[in-house]
This record gives sequence, structure tokens and C-alpha cells, in this order.
Amino acid sequence: MTEATFFCPTELICGFGVLDQLEDIVQSYGQKGLFVMDPFFLGSETESRILNLLKGKDVLTYGRVTPNPRDTDINEGAALCAGGLDFIVALGGGSAIDTAKAINVVLTNGGSAWNYVKQVDRPMKEITKPLVPLIAIPTTAGTGTEATRYSVVTDALEHKKGTIKTDLIFPTKSLVDPELMMSMPRKTTALTAIDAFAHAFEAYIGSKANVFSEMYSLQAMRLFARSALRACEDGSDREARLDMAMCSTLGGLAISHSATTLPHGIGQALSGVTDAPHGGSIAVCMANVVSWTLPECEEKFAETACLFDFTLKEKSVRKQAEALPELLNKLFYRMIGEPVTMATYGLKEEQVEAVADMAMKNFFGDISRHPRKASRDDLMAIIRSCL
Amino acid sequence: MTEATFFCPTELICGFGVLDQLEDIVQSYGQKGLFVMDPFFLGSETESRILNLLKGKDVLTYGRVTPNPRDTDINEGAALCAGGLDFIVALGGGSAIDTAKAINVVLTNGGSAWNYVKQVDRPMKEITKPLVPLIAIPTTAGTGTEATRYSVVTDALEHKKGTIKTDLIFPTKSLVDPELMMSMPRKTTALTAIDAFAHAFEAYIGSKANVFSEMYSLQAMRLFARSALRACEDGSDREARLDMAMCSTLGGLAISHSATTLPHGIGQALSGVTDAPHGGSIAVCMANVVSWTLPECEEKFAETACLFDFTLKEKSVRKQAEALPELLNKLFYRMIGEPVTMATYGLKEEQVEAVADMAMKNFFGDISRHPRKASRDDLMAIIRSCL
Repeated sequence: MTEATFFCPTELICGFGVLDQLEDIVQSYGQKGLFVMDPFFLGSETESRILNLLKGKDVLTYGRVTPNPRDTDINEGAALCAGGLDFIVALGGGSAIDTAKAINVVLTNGGSAWNYVKQVDRPMKEITKPLVPLIAIPTTAGTGTEATRYSVVTDALEHKKGTIKTDLIFPTKSLVDPELMMSMPRKTTALTAIDAFAHAFEAYIGSKANVFSEMYSLQAMRLFARSALRACEDGSDREARLDMAMCSTLGGLAISHSATTLPHGIGQALSGVTDAPHGGSIAVCMANVVSWTLPECEEKFAETACLFDFTLKEKSVRKQAEALPELLNKLFYRMIGEPVTMATYGLKEEQVEAVADMAMKNFFGDISRHPRKASRDDLMAIIRSCL
Repeated sequence: MTEATFFCPTELICGFGVLDQLEDIVQSYGQKGLFVMDPFFLGSETESRILNLLKGKDVLTYGRVTPNPRDTDINEGAALCAGGLDFIVALGGGSAIDTAKAINVVLTNGGSAWNYVKQVDRPMKEITKPLVPLIAIPTTAGTGTEATRYSVVTDALEHKKGTIKTDLIFPTKSLVDPELMMSMPRKTTALTAIDAFAHAFEAYIGSKANVFSEMYSLQAMRLFARSALRACEDGSDREARLDMAMCSTLGGLAISHSATTLPHGIGQALSGVTDAPHGGSIAVCMANVVSWTLPECEEKFAETACLFDFTLKEKSVRKQAEALPELLNKLFYRMIGEPVTMATYGLKEEQVEAVADMAMKNFFGDISRHPRKASRDDLMAIIRSCL
């Protein structure tokens, strides 16, 4: 290690019932609030519960949140607050929270959300003015965006995905309340959980891993190993739901202190070419990426495998590491409840090249941080093996 | 777990050479700086190096830092900045950084440092105005104050120790550069390292332990097990020095997310009655506290013991836990280079009662968070066993 940096100014408050703290928290803020909400919650009990916790404040609700937050929707949300704003509350999965984070930037610093995404062909707009306090309330256990410096946005005009990445958009506080996640359907539970695991695991094996990120990764993976299947098989298992909520938040901390690697590189490219959901796109390539990576990264693969199967501890490091792909494949299969491959998401043999090219072009960072360097041919072979 | 909170707004930058980043960091601040420095560094190369990194700024140096920071010295430091201040840089061990943290409160919010210490007999003064940015540069690896919400201060008039505890006094950034710790003498290395371990271990076994604090505790203890003896036996071992610097910072994170328990309760009382150095006061009671606590907390003692002796992994949890006191005693002895007991620090049999009473009165929080509840008689028996 030459240098390791720890930074997460967000206060993360985790546990059943912590949502109720929202009422006290907003007391210290001014009068005008924006409530960014996944439209899924429109008219729900959760919506009225939150509006009740915000009573006495002038709150505007904004529900134009899509699975891949568009710059146009973000700009529109920011325009609603042109008269000034004192705080933002965001409720939903990663998309709602990312939308709120980006609105916070645009409403305080002007321009369009896409201006703040780093691009090679033009300078990025600088954030010079302070943002308003943002309280994030995740309702899925996957992205971990409640604990990161990232907001993923899409250029609606050119259909390009990019990331606003700045220390300034960490939420002020995040209320991670598993009560809000109890009703997640099985498939969502499974795919978001796999995403959370991928954050922890990829941050762990990547070249940016350090003393801080490794702690978050290991703790998140321990919780995943203990509770992911339980949360899928019995959504009413409160202990498992709590573990998965924490796993997701810790996964966010892990990528915020390190970064994702090849599975996210391939997965995101797959989602670009097909409509594969984010967690699913990673589930279908994770095991094969691990197999391809061996014998590189053997020790960390071995340590990960032992979290899933304690009996492996008596075997050699080589054997432990080699057990990982099959362990993950079987577990993902049982979690999701059915086998998924890239073909499930509609990928055709003739599109393999397009996925590899998009990974090379748009997700080169992920590829470059992976413990084994992949060429374009390597990517094609891995992707083909996942069909 | 009912609730777990993660909060540390400090940016922790760790590694050899990170001190040089100070120059860039202060560029974003205003012109007027206060440099709080352990007088040990007066006229040293480190002092001139830092003044050089701060060149171009109007910097006032304050060196009235004592092992137990006095409110009077803190108030005097704050008074020096009555004309306004833009940032503070603190260089030294826990005392210098705690002095700077407390100066920051007094200069921005007025009054005396002691007003901000919670006491049963009067209301605590509130912090209502924002503090100035504080950059902490630790030169020992023990207190972890570079990552905590605490500043320990002493009422000079009444010789009482107390703690300012607020989310507002976290340093803005901490530059944890083991280069500055390379010249620490063996005994200081040993006693500060034992303090760091105690933070991690006590936070781990205490009633406030949670998913976040446990990560910090385990990572800190892993680094301690790997490198504490090496850092003592060969101060030029850079890898060991880096590990111990990180161990200390992680120990600070651990107590900031959980808290200390009985060893700190007894140790601090011992330092109140005798002149025992902080780390030494804990070294002399740690193993006996663990022995007395058994069979409570067996699993966590067992896990800790296995970090020090991998061969224990084949034994029962009971045997692992029972091995811990002797493992710690032997290691502390080898680290310090000579056996120490409470008698070494001048404690007499007739003072045992006074130590127990002070622990009961001033450090009851530590006692109440310990996994086995200690009565006054229990404390006397433990203390007597450490003579």
C-alpha cells in the first residue's frame, strides 16, 4: 500500500424503525423540502408515513424517477426548486437516490446534470456552491448509493450512461431501515443482493483495494453469505433483511473506497446492449469471470469461498479458490429461483462483439482494475461462455 | 442489533509521505492558520518541514501542549486567535490533537474548554457556531484521536479529567504518515500500541459493539497481531510502522462507533491515583480483566486469541478464549521489554480502594458497557491481582 484514504461524511443510521428519526432530523433544516420518490410508492402507506414525518415543512413531491435516471428528468426536478430549497429527502432504490443526488447538484450549481459527468471530449462543469442537506432512504438492498460519492445518470438525447463522481454528493444522512425492504419481491431481493455482493467482492479483488475497503468488503460478504439465500426464500425473515440492508450499505462503502472490476464492466455493457437488469447482468458473468481470472487472485478467492463453505478451511488455498465459481453459481441460482444466462436476457451470439466493445470503451476502468488483464479477445471468450 | 450508526466525517489519508499533501490542502482555506504543536517538535526538522508546507499563510505556532491538556492552556491558545482564524493544523500525539480540537471549540464558541465537558451538576455549554477546518497529523500510534469525536481535557483548578464529546470536533482531515512515527522510542511504541489494541478490543467486546465497530476492531487487532512486536523490536521496520499507524486510526474509529470498557475504566483510574502512563495503565490490567470476565464473552475472546495464535484454531472455543490472557501478557511483556505491574507504577496495597472508587465514580460508563458487570468488590479484587 502506498496510500489509503477513508472518506464517507454520510451519517449512516441502520436498523428497524430508524425511518422515524426523519422527523427530528429535518427540524434542524429550513422550511422548504423536496421529496424525491420512486413512483412505485405513489399513494402507498410509506409515502403518507413520510409526508407525516415531514409535516410542518413545505414539501414538494417529485416522482419522475426511472430505472436509469435521465438528465432531463433531473433537470426538471431541479427547476421545480428554482425558488430555493433547504433539504431533500429521497425514497426508493438506487434510481431515486441517484436522481436526488444529481438534482442537488443541478439546483445549487446550475446547468444540466450531464455537464457534471466526466467525459474525454469536454471539460466537466465544476461544483463551486454548497449543496443542500440530503437524506437518503433506500428501499432496496443493492446499490449502496446511500453511502457513495456516485450518481449514475443517462444522457437522454444520446442514450449514454455516465457517473457524477464527487465528494460533495454524499448524502448527509441515510436512514437504512429494513422494514421498508420487507415487501421486496423475491427476484428483486435476489438481483439487488447479488449487486451488493458484487460491489463488495469486486472492490475486494480490485487494484484499488486497501485496508479500509477490505474491511467493508469482508463484512458485507460475511452478511451476504449468512443471509442472502434466507432473505430470498423467506422475505419475512427480519434478521436476514437487516443483514442484507447492511450488506448493501457496506458494499457501497467498499466501492466508494475501492471500485468495481470486470464483472461490473461486462455486466454494464450487457445491460447496454440488451435490457438485462443490473443485478442479473452481473449474476450471469460473475462465476465465469472468477474461473477465467484464476490462478490470479487465488488468496482472495480462497478467503471468499471459505465465507460460503466453512468445510473448505481444511483444504489448500488452490482448492478453496477453485471452489468459488461453482459456489457462486449454485447460490445465485437458488436465490433467483431459476437459472439465468446471457441468453435469458436475449443476448445473441452475433452481439457478443458489441458487448465486448462496449465494455472496452465505456467500462475500461473496471477492466483495468481487475486482477487479470483482459484483452478484447478475452472478453469475447468470457461473454461467449456466459451465453 | 436494534440500531447501528456509522459516522466519521474526517477524511483519513494514510501512508508514507502523505504529510506532503498538507500544502495542497491548506490552499483551499483562508489566510490565517494556527499550528498547534507538541513542544517536543520545537526546533525539529518536522517543525520546519511543516512550516515550509504552510508557507504563504499567516501561521501562528502554539506549543503549550501537556500530556493531559489543561483547560487553561486550551483557552490561552484560543485567545491567541481572537482576531479570527481560518484553519488549524495539529502535530503530535493525542495531547496535541486533543488540545487543537478543544481550541477549535473555544475560539469559535467562546467560554472555557471545561464548559463543554458533560458534568452531572451543571448544563453543558452548547456548540452553536461552526468550527474552522482542522488538520490532524498524529506522530504516535495509539490514541486514534485523529478519527474520533472526543477531546480529553483536564480542569486545571480542580484536577479533574473529562471529555468533550461531539460530532462537531472530528478533524476535517487527518494525515496519518508513519514516517513521522519512525523515531518513536521503544517504550512509547509499545505503550501507545497497547492503547490502540485496547481501543479495538474493548470496543469489540463492549455492549455498544455493532456491525461497523466490529469491522474496525477486527482489522485493527489483525494489524496489531501482525506488527506490534515487530514495530517494538525494530523501529525501522516500515511495514510494521505503517500497520501500527493504521491500527491506531482504526482503533479510534472503533471507539468512536462503540466505546471502551473495563480495562480503560481501571486503567484511567490507576493513572488518576498514580502517574502511570495511559498505555501502561491498561497493559497492567488487561489480561487479568479478561481472566475475570470469562466465561462471559467467550466467543469474542476466542476469535481475538486466534488472531495471535493460528494454531489455536483447532481447539475448542473454550480453550481458545482461555488462552487469551496469557497470550496478551506475554506479548505485552515482550513489546515493553520488561515486566510491568501496578506496583511498577507505584501503586500500594492501601491505594487499591482509591483506584476502585475512582473507577466507579469517574469511569462508570466503561464498567457498565463491559460484558461482565463488576461490583466495587470485584474491582478491588481485580486491581489487587494486578499489583
